[in-house]
Amino acid sequence: MLTLDKVYHAAYVLKECARKTDLIAAPLLSADGGLYLKTENLQVTGSFKLRGAYYKISQLSDEEKSRGIVACSAGNHAQGVALAASKKNIASTICMPDSAPVMKVESTKRLGANVELVNGAYDDAHDRAVQLVNETGATFIHPYDDDYVIAGQATIGLEILDQLEDVENVIVPIGGGGLISGIAFAIKSLKPSVKIFGVQAAGAPSMFNSFKNHQRESLASVSTFADGIAVKNPGETTFEIISRYVDDIVCVSEDEIAAAILALIEKQKLIAEGAGAVSVAAAMFRKLPIDSQKTVCIISGGNIDVNILSRVITRGLVMTGRNVNLTIELIDKPGQLQEVSEIIARCGANVVSVYYDRGDTNMAITSCFLKLALETKDSEQIQLIKDKLTESGFKIVTERV
Amino acid sequence: MLTLDKVYHAAYVLKECARKTDLIAAPLLSADGGLYLKTENLQVTGSFKLRGAYYKISQLSDEEKSRGIVACSAGNHAQGVALAASKKNIASTICMPDSAPVMKVESTKRLGANVELVNGAYDDAHDRAVQLVNETGATFIHPYDDDYVIAGQATIGLEILDQLEDVENVIVPIGGGGLISGIAFAIKSLKPSVKIFGVQAAGAPSMFNSFKNHQRESLASVSTFADGIAVKNPGETTFEIISRYVDDIVCVSEDEIAAAILALIEKQKLIAEGAGAVSVAAAMFRKLPIDSQKTVCIISGGNIDVNILSRVITRGLVMTGRNVNLTIELIDKPGQLQEVSEIIARCGANVVSVYYDRGDTNMAITSCFLKLALETKDSEQIQLIKDKLTESGFKIVTERV
Repeated sequence: MLTLDKVYHAAYVLKECARKTDLIAAPLLSADGGLYLKTENLQVTGSFKLRGAYYKISQLSDEEKSRGIVACSAGNHAQGVALAASKKNIASTICMPDSAPVMKVESTKRLGANVELVNGAYDDAHDRAVQLVNETGATFIHPYDDDYVIAGQATIGLEILDQLEDVENVIVPIGGGGLISGIAFAIKSLKPSVKIFGVQAAGAPSMFNSFKNHQRESLASVSTFADGIAVKNPGETTFEIISRYVDDIVCVSEDEIAAAILALIEKQKLIAEGAGAVSVAAAMFRKLPIDSQKTVCIISGGNIDVNILSRVITRGLVMTGRNVNLTIELIDKPGQLQEVSEIIARCGANVVSVYYDRGDTNMAITSCFLKLALETKDSEQIQLIKDKLTESGFKIVTERV
Repeated sequence: MLTLDKVYHAAYVLKECARKTDLIAAPLLSADGGLYLKTENLQVTGSFKLRGAYYKISQLSDEEKSRGIVACSAGNHAQGVALAASKKNIASTICMPDSAPVMKVESTKRLGANVELVNGAYDDAHDRAVQLVNETGATFIHPYDDDYVIAGQATIGLEILDQLEDVENVIVPIGGGGLISGIAFAIKSLKPSVKIFGVQAAGAPSMFNSFKNHQRESLASVSTFADGIAVKNPGETTFEIISRYVDDIVCVSEDEIAAAILALIEKQKLIAEGAGAVSVAAAMFRKLPIDSQKTVCIISGGNIDVNILSRVITRGLVMTGRNVNLTIELIDKPGQLQEVSEIIARCGANVVSVYYDRGDTNMAITSCFLKLALETKDSEQIQLIKDKLTESGFKIVTERV
């Protein structure tokens, strides 16, 4: 059973392995102000998962330790378990789906785990982990549905009460529910006036649905780039704790998550993964009744694939008027390209790429397309460029967003 | 004169405005290990500049305060001065070159300063600031060549000695030299065994040249995307302090800075600007005799333009085999595109863009180019794709890096 006793004990044990991550004021992230970030993306291994895994593993008996541990994960839990086991000199096998990003597989190996790549998806890796446990007598380390794991995550709640005494709300990402269960239990036990809110990705609302319908509901499939919280099955223990202690759960869209990631980069100099940014997304897009109250957003992790990060930034730049793609119809005669270039330069924008196409079959035979990618300052500058081009007789065909 | 007394006083005064930024272990950033990051990119305003500006401004007389202050900056100093003046209820005018990024201008205004955009470059803005000082009797807040400003930056040295008692080396970015002067003075005064190293961008080596030639030398021009340290004129005071206390200065290239920025994103979940990342670049690329010793890299700031960040990431992805552009020569007959697509899919890569061109005048009339941008896992996967394409009879024309 989860008790404050376990949580305080976890806090003591974690001193030897986990960081007490910084709480950073983020007054510019929402129009109302009052936001603070609990930076678990700066935790060792890049996510909070180390806390629960380390506490759980530290509490195994000597005999259990000697038989080793097994876990199943495509991401952050894998790294947390691998490091925790290494620190305790315990053999660990992590079953990962072979679709897991190479970087996460490599990180897990580097932290000392034996990684077994399993053909298929998460569920297949899970089946293999269960098989290994049955064959070897190793202990399975569940990513969230375990009192010790939850007690480890709960230490974040203790730290928040210590770092921001007059905190009024805490917003927490939800996947399986281990993180919010721990934080809600710790904070509501000590200071019940603090509101605890959960956030899920709209494409993976398993706990959201369960919470609203007052019963555990699994999803057949999930779809979100916030892979850290793309969970089909809410935990049993976590669902009970959440039903009792959490005030509300909301969902955020993929574009809202992307906007939150970009805002964290620009305003706070922090990298969050999709799952880590949903708390900020909920605050930025006013999904919760927090106004200007002192509100802590948990940034649960920062392990985002750089290719995805690059796409998030690109999309954010287009959405905020700092990048634009223009297609201009030109009459096929000399000097046209030069004239367009001059107008753009005079407006102060930067040309990133030019593509000049005479071959489009939709066009009159004497005209052609000029496709430009520009770096711009803001939407006003884009409008200025369009106006000047139109004034000079050029026809802007489409704008791809 | 710079004294320890001033430094300790600055540390006391700064409690009301600046953050004691976290020191974070970064064992994966260099092959040798032993690195720690002093995260001044997470300082209020996104850089260390607030420390010096705030302490300087706090020490003005009431009469000086009533006449207001003037500063000149295209970046971080502007924001530091603006916030410091607002906190002290002092009127501030910041002269910024009109080429300064809109975002930095907006941030400076938002922090309460009166911003005067000056036609031209930094030097023009500086001239206008001097003129304003002469006209109004306001106090000029120098970005680095001032004992109080240096004492403010020196508080970082005190914090490092507190946060990592057995520190052996500190690596510090150098622009005008205020940051390293402060840190070197504080640390060498208290613990002379600690080595202090400076780093400049190879495209702006003003203090590097001066240090090596034992006399102040200005540069006619500077060229680096690390705009925060693109300084032509080393300070007088800072040059003297650096000559006395700094052990060595090295330079890093633009590509090394970009690689450091990408590594900080991937391994530490932190955004650094170019100037902020040169310390890590020097450690990563073994420019200094630090081996596996306990070494603190100062991440001096995180205010990087997102368009530039996007380019840094893109370049880093290509350099590390996670993005590739392939041009393939096809015979102009049906089914070729499909065959190429199949090979790439089977190798597990992601197609980002496709450009199919029959119009290239260098090609035989029956052949054409297929240009592909791919997301890949690593260089090995790229080689596998190339091998499979070649085996199937396709000719890979060029690879653009």
